[in-house]
Amino acid sequence: MPLMTAKEYIESLRKLNTRVYMFGQKIDNWVDDPIIRPSINCVAMTYALAQDPQYEDLMTATSSLTGHEINRFTHLHQSSEDLVKKVKMQRLLGQKTASCFQRCVGMDAFNAVFSTTFETDEKYGTSYHENFKTFLIKMQDADLTVDGAMTDPKGDRSKAPHDQADPDMFVHVVERRSDGIVVCGAKCHQTGSVNSHWHIFMPTIAMGEADKDWAVSFACPTDAEGMYLIYGRQSCDTRKLEGCSIDVGNAKFGGQEALVVLDHVFIPNEYIFLNGEYEFAGMMVERFAGYHRQSYGGCKVGVGDVVIGAAALAAEYNGVEKASAIKDKLIEMTHLNETLYSCGIACSCEGCPTKAGNYQIDLLLANVCKQNVTRFPYEIVRLAEDIAGGLMVTIPSQRDFGSDTVVGNNGETIGDICNKYFATRKGVSTEDRQRVMRFLENMCLGAAAVGYRTESLHGAGSPQAQRIMIGRQGDIQDKKQLAKNIAGIVSDKEDN
Amino acid sequence: MPLMTAKEYIESLRKLNTRVYMFGQKIDNWVDDPIIRPSINCVAMTYALAQDPQYEDLMTATSSLTGHEINRFTHLHQSSEDLVKKVKMQRLLGQKTASCFQRCVGMDAFNAVFSTTFETDEKYGTSYHENFKTFLIKMQDADLTVDGAMTDPKGDRSKAPHDQADPDMFVHVVERRSDGIVVCGAKCHQTGSVNSHWHIFMPTIAMGEADKDWAVSFACPTDAEGMYLIYGRQSCDTRKLEGCSIDVGNAKFGGQEALVVLDHVFIPNEYIFLNGEYEFAGMMVERFAGYHRQSYGGCKVGVGDVVIGAAALAAEYNGVEKASAIKDKLIEMTHLNETLYSCGIACSCEGCPTKAGNYQIDLLLANVCKQNVTRFPYEIVRLAEDIAGGLMVTIPSQRDFGSDTVVGNNGETIGDICNKYFATRKGVSTEDRQRVMRFLENMCLGAAAVGYRTESLHGAGSPQAQRIMIGRQGDIQDKKQLAKNIAGIVSDKEDN
Amino acid sequence: MPLMTAKEYIESLRKLNTRVYMFGQKIDNWVDDPIIRPSINCVAMTYALAQDPQYEDLMTATSSLTGHEINRFTHLHQSSEDLVKKVKMQRLLGQKTASCFQRCVGMDAFNAVFSTTFETDEKYGTSYHENFKTFLIKMQDADLTVDGAMTDPKGDRSKAPHDQADPDMFVHVVERRSDGIVVCGAKCHQTGSVNSHWHIFMPTIAMGEADKDWAVSFACPTDAEGMYLIYGRQSCDTRKLEGCSIDVGNAKFGGQEALVVLDHVFIPNEYIFLNGEYEFAGMMVERFAGYHRQSYGGCKVGVGDVVIGAAALAAEYNGVEKASAIKDKLIEMTHLNETLYSCGIACSCEGCPTKAGNYQIDLLLANVCKQNVTRFPYEIVRLAEDIAGGLMVTIPSQRDFGSDTVVGNNGETIGDICNKYFATRKGVSTEDRQRVMRFLENMCLGAAAVGYRTESLHGAGSPQAQRIMIGRQGDIQDKKQLAKNIAGIVSDKEDN
Amino acid sequence: MPLMTAKEYIESLRKLNTRVYMFGQKIDNWVDDPIIRPSINCVAMTYALAQDPQYEDLMTATSSLTGHEINRFTHLHQSSEDLVKKVKMQRLLGQKTASCFQRCVGMDAFNAVFSTTFETDEKYGTSYHENFKTFLIKMQDADLTVDGAMTDPKGDRSKAPHDQADPDMFVHVVERRSDGIVVCGAKCHQTGSVNSHWHIFMPTIAMGEADKDWAVSFACPTDAEGMYLIYGRQSCDTRKLEGCSIDVGNAKFGGQEALVVLDHVFIPNEYIFLNGEYEFAGMMVERFAGYHRQSYGGCKVGVGDVVIGAAALAAEYNGVEKASAIKDKLIEMTHLNETLYSCGIACSCEGCPTKAGNYQIDLLLANVCKQNVTRFPYEIVRLAEDIAGGLMVTIPSQRDFGSDTVVGNNGETIGDICNKYFATRKGVSTEDRQRVMRFLENMCLGAAAVGYRTESLHGAGSPQAQRIMIGRQGDIQDKKQLAKNIAGIVSDKEDN
Repeated sequence: MPLMTAKEYIESLRKLNTRVYMFGQKIDNWVDDPIIRPSINCVAMTYALAQDPQYEDLMTATSSLTGHEINRFTHLHQSSEDLVKKVKMQRLLGQKTASCFQRCVGMDAFNAVFSTTFETDEKYGTSYHENFKTFLIKMQDADLTVDGAMTDPKGDRSKAPHDQADPDMFVHVVERRSDGIVVCGAKCHQTGSVNSHWHIFMPTIAMGEADKDWAVSFACPTDAEGMYLIYGRQSCDTRKLEGCSIDVGNAKFGGQEALVVLDHVFIPNEYIFLNGEYEFAGMMVERFAGYHRQSYGGCKVGVGDVVIGAAALAAEYNGVEKASAIKDKLIEMTHLNETLYSCGIACSCEGCPTKAGNYQIDLLLANVCKQNVTRFPYEIVRLAEDIAGGLMVTIPSQRDFGSDTVVGNNGETIGDICNKYFATRKGVSTEDRQRVMRFLENMCLGAAAVGYRTESLHGAGSPQAQRIMIGRQGDIQDKKQLAKNIAGIVSDKEDN
Repeated sequence: MPLMTAKEYIESLRKLNTRVYMFGQKIDNWVDDPIIRPSINCVAMTYALAQDPQYEDLMTATSSLTGHEINRFTHLHQSSEDLVKKVKMQRLLGQKTASCFQRCVGMDAFNAVFSTTFETDEKYGTSYHENFKTFLIKMQDADLTVDGAMTDPKGDRSKAPHDQADPDMFVHVVERRSDGIVVCGAKCHQTGSVNSHWHIFMPTIAMGEADKDWAVSFACPTDAEGMYLIYGRQSCDTRKLEGCSIDVGNAKFGGQEALVVLDHVFIPNEYIFLNGEYEFAGMMVERFAGYHRQSYGGCKVGVGDVVIGAAALAAEYNGVEKASAIKDKLIEMTHLNETLYSCGIACSCEGCPTKAGNYQIDLLLANVCKQNVTRFPYEIVRLAEDIAGGLMVTIPSQRDFGSDTVVGNNGETIGDICNKYFATRKGVSTEDRQRVMRFLENMCLGAAAVGYRTESLHGAGSPQAQRIMIGRQGDIQDKKQLAKNIAGIVSDKEDN
Repeated sequence: MPLMTAKEYIESLRKLNTRVYMFGQKIDNWVDDPIIRPSINCVAMTYALAQDPQYEDLMTATSSLTGHEINRFTHLHQSSEDLVKKVKMQRLLGQKTASCFQRCVGMDAFNAVFSTTFETDEKYGTSYHENFKTFLIKMQDADLTVDGAMTDPKGDRSKAPHDQADPDMFVHVVERRSDGIVVCGAKCHQTGSVNSHWHIFMPTIAMGEADKDWAVSFACPTDAEGMYLIYGRQSCDTRKLEGCSIDVGNAKFGGQEALVVLDHVFIPNEYIFLNGEYEFAGMMVERFAGYHRQSYGGCKVGVGDVVIGAAALAAEYNGVEKASAIKDKLIEMTHLNETLYSCGIACSCEGCPTKAGNYQIDLLLANVCKQNVTRFPYEIVRLAEDIAGGLMVTIPSQRDFGSDTVVGNNGETIGDICNKYFATRKGVSTEDRQRVMRFLENMCLGAAAVGYRTESLHGAGSPQAQRIMIGRQGDIQDKKQLAKNIAGIVSDKEDN
Repeated sequence: MPLMTAKEYIESLRKLNTRVYMFGQKIDNWVDDPIIRPSINCVAMTYALAQDPQYEDLMTATSSLTGHEINRFTHLHQSSEDLVKKVKMQRLLGQKTASCFQRCVGMDAFNAVFSTTFETDEKYGTSYHENFKTFLIKMQDADLTVDGAMTDPKGDRSKAPHDQADPDMFVHVVERRSDGIVVCGAKCHQTGSVNSHWHIFMPTIAMGEADKDWAVSFACPTDAEGMYLIYGRQSCDTRKLEGCSIDVGNAKFGGQEALVVLDHVFIPNEYIFLNGEYEFAGMMVERFAGYHRQSYGGCKVGVGDVVIGAAALAAEYNGVEKASAIKDKLIEMTHLNETLYSCGIACSCEGCPTKAGNYQIDLLLANVCKQNVTRFPYEIVRLAEDIAGGLMVTIPSQRDFGSDTVVGNNGETIGDICNKYFATRKGVSTEDRQRVMRFLENMCLGAAAVGYRTESLHGAGSPQAQRIMIGRQGDIQDKKQLAKNIAGIVSDKEDN
């Protein structure tokens, strides 16, 4: 079965009965909606590049389950080399879209659920792992896009799922039937939801026995009965409705987030991957988070490449690209970006096999990776704004540049005046200058800033979540012993 | 003559024939335009607070020229205490508007032009200082708002004004008549232009003899014949057109920028403050920049106060305000913000009189102040985003929260579902949660981010401009001598 | 009574029976001990500069108690101008010594005890304030140096004073007699102890009723019966014993720390300033800490000036002072150093009178000042090491440069070879190069690093102590209200 | 031929006639000199661990030249896996010594010279590669330690080698004979020199044709006729002469630096690896620097592990290890340290084969690695000092703690008093507290700080050297094209 083309992917979405609400209304033709479409284009790029021979090694893989050629986004990592290739594929996609391309969450969910179901079955004799393999083969062979849905609304954060005033604050089982379960709840901040064919739902925190009904994982099609999405709004979202290709900054690609609601959705047994074995909720979360923290060492680096390039271009257009202060800022941006990449590569290279056979990343280094991602893109953005200059936020609209309205004493139009005063050195058109300024505006404070900044901070877990993991994984007792050895401290007592 | 009220100020704008263009068209009733109005409200606040007895000491002063009570925004600083009060007034305004309130540029221009004209007259026997005093008394007595316009388009940055392909790239004299001059050119990034009654134009760089015609400073009314403005667009600008009070984040206040064009504008002799005495162009620039770099140690601190408060509120609503990591981040934000304030206070406290008698700030410390302003607001914003959580950029629109469209199996509306899933702990309404999230979105990546971030970077000169001044003012030869004294190095040779 | 000269000060120390122990032995002639003497020279500089007419305004003041001319180090600050002058005096001393000059702790203790005793008396009708005034007049008139001793050993830090296994872990009253009290305990990290004529002891933490006997403050002469000092060792301390003027880096000045032990010392009533009124312990600590945190915005800035100068000198000797990267690093060092100064000036400028009439600093800004001091000198040091180059830590000893031992094939000596290979550009002697390298070594990792780095971190309270104060003083509830006002949140409920 | 034991290594040094000068004199028994010995112990550890079966995989390798088992320090890397193992071996050694262990420079020289000689021969038909292989087999089989000597004194840095007033400022050929060459000059900052059996000399900069005689690389035994070393002095060096095991901080291990002088040393043809082919000087430098910048991502991380452990231990002894601020600082230290490690791993994992067949690292990422090493250890040190508390620099000497001199009223000795007042919580001995404080003092500002701080800054090239390489390797033109693609900029013109 051949891999889907980008076009086929987009057409396949039209066949789904996905329910999308935005600005208080149902959106019928959501595939062509100008606000939503850039996100679809991003996922489409994961299909397009897989068709391109020059990217074959990164974009495709041989399925460990079937031996078929598959898109790497549906692959179970078979080696640390596979983990490294994943990061490189993500950097490539970031470079091609300057956006969150959203298909990673599914890939990370596949790998986390695969190994967790294996260990759950091992303990309980359940058949979740077989369920999952069957499901995954279907996804691989049909080359489908799957959302990995984790973050629950959480309600009162000081309370466990079973203690919430409203039990729906975490996705949970409301009815158990012989042929399946009925679930309710919602998932927040879902990036790759609208444009996915299927969803995998996973718990969002470690759980105790009282939370049994909330310890649930399963797959369902995006247009399952009872499932719908409420679209979140982003900075400058409606600029996409203006029909202007320049002012949007990035006319083709973009990210998105939605609230995904499950209103009594029936899940047949064959799509269930966890159902009450609460002590495995934490494992699933930790593994998914680990993979996803690795991911950021690839995708955000690719976006960073474009930001650095745009800043260099802005400097060139402004005529200052040879100034030592400018060059030094571009070096610093590159340095920070490649540090992120190093972290992405390192946690991959140091990966190791799970019991189920697929590879997982080095957990400590993946958390270190993501922790840096919560910092460096912000500094890269600051430096990009520094290099771009104030024009990035004060330049008149594209419509002004094209306007025929007369303003000047000699019949000059608004357009004439804009083109006169925003000209710089010879050979640079004011249109190109607008384009680079608007692209940087989009990255630094427009719609793309949601993905490059805030998502870098909170995606795959907020900074404090990584610090907790670093604290746990940092082997502080071993390090104390190293210090004792050198300092000559002989203590047979406790090490507290 | 009593100080104007806020209402009188707004009405006074209607009487002007100010020409404003936006999105390719002339805006007739610009005073009530929803995109422009928030900026007018900001300046109106400088009038309103001056009427409030509790702020009298900060907001008003006694004119050194007339002895009349005036708004401090039109005052010539008579002491370092005045300079400190200026900073405190700016912090207050920042707290009340969470915006750039735009009237400072005029105040800083007043003080720079006052002392520079004095020294120009002293050398050349010109009468610019008298011209300026007469002009200023008029402004003080009528309590008018004046824009200080400095930044020229600059064209090819590697070339001096007289070397540009288009001479209009810097404002210049195109004709000298017995009764005045005719000027052409433009000023970029003008924040307090549309909402000002008058403008003071100043050169933007130090100049040489060949740039004589570009070494010009003068005042003119905002609706002078031949003068018009093209409005710049900001992140999320059109959200203000939606008629939603929540999604805009800050419904009442905001900043703005415009390109101000002078198309053969005639300036009568009495409003000319520099006309060819090129060696004073640099002094005017340096003094204005010095005052304006001080200003940022007040206004941005006030805005920072609101950002910190909003982050604390978000933490409270999220139910995590007692977590040590949250408290520590609020402390760090406060620490950074108060460091900025310390710099604003210090360069004021260390101020000294000019030859003309008004006070100027300590130039080294004012540059240090601004340099920190190019860094810390970015970190404050990053920490605010960290505390707020991803919801800041993924929450559905206000219209979703209010929508009656049915989505659920039991007749729930979009509004019901939004209010259900975005509820947190008891006692917090989802509307308040929306409000704080939208306010932070506005500050971090919406329209207000233009003022709080990019303007902090580039306003009053980009970071490198301050570094050059710090290098010049840092007395490195003196410091070398201190080191030689201690290290026992006796060198009678050159100090290079 | 005239102010003491530096020479008289040094002679006056010889008359004291101060008991100093070091390296396990009593040091009889401690005034001339090569390890201790640099510290004495530092304090002597506070006398020398007070004799110099050019520094009179900074170094001297008119006593508010007697009207006599006194050294500013014994002054009660009468205005915010006095507070500013204090900071400038400290910067001057830092520039002249490149060291901690140690007399500040007494000055800060004077001002804290003066106002605290006033308020204690006000509540309890005690006569501590009179005691203190009489004592201070004596110190002012005789121009004596006084140590302000605060930090107790603290033992088990999780326990209050009265709960410690050993009650001596905090200084306390062991006997109350009609004519005075007998005290036991110790104070750690005392910088200005050996070279002081008197000591003021203060509690180190806020206390509860059970800690009454530990809530004690008093003065005693440095050679009081039962009092002695154990000298701490510093990095490179014994290099001062080598008799080499170059390798020590700073041959004349230096800091020190000692453990000050009180072994049943009798304190007559007239020297008691607190004796059981436990609720005033916290006030005394907080006020002293506030003044001392301000101090660091002066003294460390002065030292920073010398470090910057030395780095610039090293760059000059290395022949790279014109490289843009070097210039930029010197600018950054200057920027950081002046930011510290701004904080020192601002918390002074914003000072206000106590009930007792002397001025105290702005507590929030003083804590902000010190918090920055825990960071920036480390970065200044790092940049200095960067500019200096590796030679700073690899250059052979002064004895090698002067050695006659033959090593080369043609009779060259070690000295010849060192002078050959460590020569740089024409006009720079290898001796001067040694001197600047050794000075920087001394500042960055030698004896002076104790003062410039570690003391910047922990002196006047460790970083976390300032964070707690910033949290408390930051008015977070007010800031929340500002945010509510702008975001349109009307909440009549609690603000928790 | 079996690998040498640590003991055999030390004995082998005694057989050399190495000429070492220190403090102006020749040191005869330098192997047992207390200042020098810790450096020898470090290298000895590279032998000891290679004997330990648990470290066999990291510490040994199979020679690509002979198939023999060799110490990895003499290995030519055959794969990126080998490069990763190199980094892990270095982290291990750093953990075991908390020092620079000095044998890496030789390993990095082996790999750089191996591939450069191959390419030189390829162009010129010279036999340097064969010379080098023969030499290396000898080193591998005899398991010898070799110093890689690169940094010349450089004299006037604005001048090329052939332009220097003194031609010896760079090592050069002074005579060419049929059987070899005679060389003069010196190398600075040599860490692994005294304790090496042989040296490889390499040029230190790219060279032009006029510098032909300076474009020279060769090997010679450490005790070659005409070669001698002048030992540099380090912070706290003489503390090692006191015979105290505690006050030195790290009693067994340490680093060192020496000036290595070549005074007409004859080099037989078989040991020559470059001789006038000036255009290969730059390649040798860049490759060596690349390997050595990778190395720092291993060795300094290992030292960092010990520093973190010691800080945690200090917190434990101080009784504050559960405080959230302390835990957070340990997490930050771990985070920074593991970021360095990630960079070391990543540039290894991304390695690729040279023409000669051995593997070289990814040059961009290796420079990024080292750039981070110039920053993070300084912050780790600052945090360690923060956690340790002021006692780290104020605690009395070991001799005080052991002193019998009576000081107290009841016969207490200095030792009694020190042990009383520096006690903390139950179960912690004051000796252990001394040990951890002294260890941290040693790392932060003592002898070990030379290696952990200054060497991190300047070793393998100063920060600016890496920035230049990052700028060159960062592919800015490619990044500009990425931005153009997304922003819709079609420019067929130059990309300048």
